[in-house]
Amino acid sequence: MREEATAFVPGHITGFFSAHSAEDPTKAGSRGAGLTLTDGVDVTVTPAPEGESTIVLDGEELEIDPVRTVLETLETPARVEAESEIPLGSGFGVSGAMALGTALAANRVFERKLSRNELVTIAHGAEVQAGTGLGDVVAQAHGGVPIRLEPGGPQENKLDAIPERARVEYVSFGELSTADVLSGETDQLSAAGKQALSRVVEEPTLLSFMYASRLFAREAGLLTEQVAETINDVSEVGGQASMAMLGETVFALGTGLSDAGYEPTVCATHPAGAMLK
Amino acid sequence: MREEATAFVPGHITGFFSAHSAEDPTKAGSRGAGLTLTDGVDVTVTPAPEGESTIVLDGEELEIDPVRTVLETLETPARVEAESEIPLGSGFGVSGAMALGTALAANRVFERKLSRNELVTIAHGAEVQAGTGLGDVVAQAHGGVPIRLEPGGPQENKLDAIPERARVEYVSFGELSTADVLSGETDQLSAAGKQALSRVVEEPTLLSFMYASRLFAREAGLLTEQVAETINDVSEVGGQASMAMLGETVFALGTGLSDAGYEPTVCATHPAGAMLK
Repeated sequence: MREEATAFVPGHITGFFSAHSAEDPTKAGSRGAGLTLTDGVDVTVTPAPEGESTIVLDGEELEIDPVRTVLETLETPARVEAESEIPLGSGFGVSGAMALGTALAANRVFERKLSRNELVTIAHGAEVQAGTGLGDVVAQAHGGVPIRLEPGGPQENKLDAIPERARVEYVSFGELSTADVLSGETDQLSAAGKQALSRVVEEPTLLSFMYASRLFAREAGLLTEQVAETINDVSEVGGQASMAMLGETVFALGTGLSDAGYEPTVCATHPAGAMLK
Repeated sequence: MREEATAFVPGHITGFFSAHSAEDPTKAGSRGAGLTLTDGVDVTVTPAPEGESTIVLDGEELEIDPVRTVLETLETPARVEAESEIPLGSGFGVSGAMALGTALAANRVFERKLSRNELVTIAHGAEVQAGTGLGDVVAQAHGGVPIRLEPGGPQENKLDAIPERARVEYVSFGELSTADVLSGETDQLSAAGKQALSRVVEEPTLLSFMYASRLFAREAGLLTEQVAETINDVSEVGGQASMAMLGETVFALGTGLSDAGYEPTVCATHPAGAMLK
């Protein structure tokens, strides 16, 4: 057994999605598209005595169900310590990042000898089961600007990507509970998500992704007043912005938010998927 | 139209493979596994007048069939200028890197609006058609340490990966023609390749990859005297080395070749697939 291992997992902003349920959580998930980010989460796993696993995010101990499930599935009691550049509960896939980072690092520390797909499947299944996300884990494993053509873990899904890179800006105004939204009525949301996906499959560019995301945010009925206003502010200066699904967060390409007078956090799309450091 | 675009494509050393033919070159290819490398090829595409495409590698004009095919398929007459850290014809996937880099960069320069999978499919098909490689392009698009479970382009294939990173050393003694080897009798080679794949699927670790690769190199009957001797030298100092398929090249994990007294080139596995710069 090694003393510790660290994985970096990029953040992931979903622009639009449709939810797809299945009894087996490794087959459930979402279709959609998003941006993986150079801002992400470092997850360090250190062995702990059996029954004494702990999860720490930015110095604070907390419960994150999918992380707990990953540790149990791999039978790797551990201290999981995450340092995040992105806020929890704001649409950046922090819980998915922690689940995936834990799977990659625990596999290494405990020499579990699982393949990358197997580890992604475990993290994806744990996230879906907990209701904290549907597509972040597979997107974060892929990197770039992934298009999720078919839902589920890597044994089931089908991914493509937009072959572009971009500077990305974002501002967060607060949290939205993914679990609350996903446990509600998602028919309207999913219809809008399917339309958005057709558009991006037809023209896989960042511009069409932003356009489809904006339409989706409106049609899915998830816009808060603050988010709608900010997206408009960016549009008015000729920029491209939309809402991160699911968080009270606005993201923009290039200098969209700065140009509109905001003081955003600046990062970029991340060319690689999650990786051991 | 943009003035130019540059893509970086990692080198790829195949440890073992089995060949799979099909009438449609986007469905043909290979199963196997390999290492993508931080040493790779930068490919810059600049528009050229129709009928005046040129291909330049490290300052020298030359013909590389799959690159020509990619330009014709995308209808993007261009000057393709590649700077390579890895030698041509020595088992590093330079031709695949140039085909894939050309596809990514030409799509951007000429705003062809194709998806990443479409571009990889075009480059893969061009490479298979030319007989210069069977699995490099899809591996180079993936990054990391890809396991090619099913042959073909991204619409057809199935990939997994070994979730590890490593320092990699290599020495090249000369060229082998991929096209010559692949156009000969490949039954014995493919039988050995399938066995090697089973081994790595059962235990997806770098150690088992190196072991399977060494067995394959012996059984496929492709070892030259110089390569066999070098692999033995590394084994004798407790290191892990094998032969790059297809080149007169030995690669080793960690400090295997240095420890055995060679003066290798040093790089590492590349965590990301091919990317625009």
